[in-house]
Amino acid sequence: MKGIFLTFEGIEGVGKSTQIAKLYDYLSVDYPVIQVREPGGTKIGMEIRKILLDPSIQEPFSMFAELFLYAASRAQLMEQVILPALEEGKIILCDRFIDSTIAYQAYGAGVPLQDVLQINRQAIGNHLPNRTYLLDLPISISQERLAARSKGKDRMEQKSEDFHSRVRNGYLALAEDNKERIKLIDATRSKKSIFKEILQDIKSYI
Amino acid sequence: MKGIFLTFEGIEGVGKSTQIAKLYDYLSVDYPVIQVREPGGTKIGMEIRKILLDPSIQEPFSMFAELFLYAASRAQLMEQVILPALEEGKIILCDRFIDSTIAYQAYGAGVPLQDVLQINRQAIGNHLPNRTYLLDLPISISQERLAARSKGKDRMEQKSEDFHSRVRNGYLALAEDNKERIKLIDATRSKKSIFKEILQDIKSYI
Repeated sequence: MKGIFLTFEGIEGVGKSTQIAKLYDYLSVDYPVIQVREPGGTKIGMEIRKILLDPSIQEPFSMFAELFLYAASRAQLMEQVILPALEEGKIILCDRFIDSTIAYQAYGAGVPLQDVLQINRQAIGNHLPNRTYLLDLPISISQERLAARSKGKDRMEQKSEDFHSRVRNGYLALAEDNKERIKLIDATRSKKSIFKEILQDIKSYI
Repeated sequence: MKGIFLTFEGIEGVGKSTQIAKLYDYLSVDYPVIQVREPGGTKIGMEIRKILLDPSIQEPFSMFAELFLYAASRAQLMEQVILPALEEGKIILCDRFIDSTIAYQAYGAGVPLQDVLQINRQAIGNHLPNRTYLLDLPISISQERLAARSKGKDRMEQKSEDFHSRVRNGYLALAEDNKERIKLIDATRSKKSIFKEILQDIKSYI
């Protein structure tokens, strides 16, 4: 594998999309870069995304149905997009990946951690990201930012503050347990200073 | 659990739908009966079904993406429809269930059996069907019946004869290993005689 696989994690409103867009613009001047997001990134993944985030689906999701849908999108993205891009030596900027599932499904929704890890393993094999940037914000700021957005909230964003608080704690526990891979980033700072910190870290990998 | 959970299995063209329709009509005179099918049976499941069987999705499915999508539909159907119906004492006639996944994904598509079993366990917990009717036909007859259908073939039906042959062998191996649960039925006989055989068997459970 000649490429570099980078993932971006964090609760809603931490600024993942903004940073990925800035990094894409900057890095693509000199390097082959692709950006993908989860769930999605393939035709099959986009159809799965619609099911997962559609607020008009009124029936409550079974815990495992939700987990399997994310895993299906991930397995498809891995095989169809990420592995070929790594083979071609590209830099991959991926908006959410396995840590999202652990934080949201295990810590947030209460699926047994063993089941989540097992399903993640099946979805991605041994292909962990080279580096993961965890953008961290207090829940209160994240919720304020969400409230200020003009577009409606999707099904995940609609969940309770308690839920999001458990998710954040899950992320922080993951960062503690995976210091080699996950870089914790204080997202209360300016976009520019966050961008510089991530960029400097990425450059050490290129 | 006061109800009875019955599943119907077999390769394409063996007559599962016909038998389920006849059984539903007959049994519903005296008993509370529901019929469901996989993938599907819930709104989430119907959306998943569209993705799985849509011949216009040109990208090849990752093996695990396919497996997870079936599992998601199953987990949702189990929690939302089958378990409540069992609690209410209903007879459930289910068109395809876990044995389909083992036959199609493990034997047909080559997913490691251990992974398929693990995912099935997560999707349904300990809720195995009370009885499974496996309608069996030689591949040549199944393919003839499919060819005679006026509607187009879905993505599963379009797979090679070799694939369907591995699936059939998988089903027969399952029947051999689960004699208590799976009743093997020779589907080369008349619809009426197949119906009588299944009905007699069901009556012994009521």
